[in-house]
Amino acid sequence: MKILLNNTSLFESLRPFNDLGFVPTMGGIHKGHLSLINKSNKLCKKTIVSIFVNPKQFNNKKDLKSYPRNIKKDLKILKKSKKVDFVYLPTFKDIYKDKKKSKITLQKKDKILCAKFRKGHFEGVLDVMNKLTKIVKPKKIFMGEKDFQQLYLVKKELEKKYKTKVIPCKTIRDRDNVALSSRNLLLNKTNLITAAKIYETLVDIKKNTKNKKNIPSFLNLKKKELKNNYKIKIDYLELRNINNLKISSTKKNSRLFIAYYLNNVRLIDNL
Amino acid sequence: MKILLNNTSLFESLRPFNDLGFVPTMGGIHKGHLSLINKSNKLCKKTIVSIFVNPKQFNNKKDLKSYPRNIKKDLKILKKSKKVDFVYLPTFKDIYKDKKKSKITLQKKDKILCAKFRKGHFEGVLDVMNKLTKIVKPKKIFMGEKDFQQLYLVKKELEKKYKTKVIPCKTIRDRDNVALSSRNLLLNKTNLITAAKIYETLVDIKKNTKNKKNIPSFLNLKKKELKNNYKIKIDYLELRNINNLKISSTKKNSRLFIAYYLNNVRLIDNL
Repeated sequence: MKILLNNTSLFESLRPFNDLGFVPTMGGIHKGHLSLINKSNKLCKKTIVSIFVNPKQFNNKKDLKSYPRNIKKDLKILKKSKKVDFVYLPTFKDIYKDKKKSKITLQKKDKILCAKFRKGHFEGVLDVMNKLTKIVKPKKIFMGEKDFQQLYLVKKELEKKYKTKVIPCKTIRDRDNVALSSRNLLLNKTNLITAAKIYETLVDIKKNTKNKKNIPSFLNLKKKELKNNYKIKIDYLELRNINNLKISSTKKNSRLFIAYYLNNVRLIDNL
Repeated sequence: MKILLNNTSLFESLRPFNDLGFVPTMGGIHKGHLSLINKSNKLCKKTIVSIFVNPKQFNNKKDLKSYPRNIKKDLKILKKSKKVDFVYLPTFKDIYKDKKKSKITLQKKDKILCAKFRKGHFEGVLDVMNKLTKIVKPKKIFMGEKDFQQLYLVKKELEKKYKTKVIPCKTIRDRDNVALSSRNLLLNKTNLITAAKIYETLVDIKKNTKNKKNIPSFLNLKKKELKNNYKIKIDYLELRNINNLKISSTKKNSRLFIAYYLNNVRLIDNL
């Protein structure tokens, strides 16, 4: 029984769910997720985490099949954090109850970076994020900057439709500066060492990128070097404006985006 | 941390405050209040009890001054019930923040029973109930049938204005059938014995009331008998329809209403 001595304490106590922070995940909970949860816990009255491996955002069946799943371990980590009020584990039916086909289509200008290489991926992400937002009705949604394009598209999609705000959170890295990702569980030690070296190279590349019109050709050269040095497949290595994701000819308000494969695992990063 | 395995459990867990039961009181918590709390606890996800002695509903300054107040004891009883989630103890300012004068006026047809004898009383009740409802935003409000006219007027007032539902609850009586009231604390043993006898007489009167047009004159006679036998002042003794509170000429859908004084304490009952 809570005693409310005035209206301020009444409003605070009675409206916690008007102030719900939401951290949508596909499981494989790591410190990146925990930093989102921490932020939600600081900014919101209650925090809900969802774990739902959304089949509709996988353009590759093998990727879906191998995606790390360990719900018991995830729950243990979340519980230990003491910062999660609710964990939402929807069934497929809970989300895709109405069999209506999603009407999400990307604009042509957004069919870049991962959208170009993973056909249908972001359509699936935006569809599930619409559905989750309608169900959970959060005040704020917390998403990591590692998936910068996802954050950019989800923010654009949800904030025009709902009262929810999408809050970007810094990428969390391991001690070798590899960006945390559930997919890292699929990498071996050698892969992780390579990933750390690639990160260092990216920092160098960014440092040596000069503000001039030939940035794309400079990056193209660097991409070839990366490919040869580390024997990796690279989807893209591009400098883009953070506000509209257009190809950038200046370092100001820009990020260097990369997607590459290690051990057949597709990894992304940006800095 | 609560684990939600499907949407049903999500909706149940996330929306408790869309399902808030409210028991407004002026303190002096007794088993009547506890029965309201029990009902709220059964029908609603969360229960809030307010304790606020509303000065604006007292037409008599002495009555306001002598009204029983023991907040510590009240809180102890409420806590012990284990059925109250929140106790709201507003300050005068919390309720009467805006100094706008209340615009509540009773319709002429409602100026009957207690409204006739306690000028301004129900205007004060309806005003505070409007304010409390706006603040607390309950789904259901629980009120006892002992204050039948109050229940009738509040239901009419609130249900047309808000999404809240006013739920009538049976009058709770002590083992001698005296209707429980905070004001009973102001009675001595002799008064309580008299109150029990008056209740018995009322049962008799109701039994002997025949369906005919001279019910009012029959009740007038009985009122005089009560006055003489118990040396009490009686404000009214009337049979009225439960749906519109009009004077009734049939026992069907009717209640016998009484207001009388014992030890200068005004008591009401109906059956």
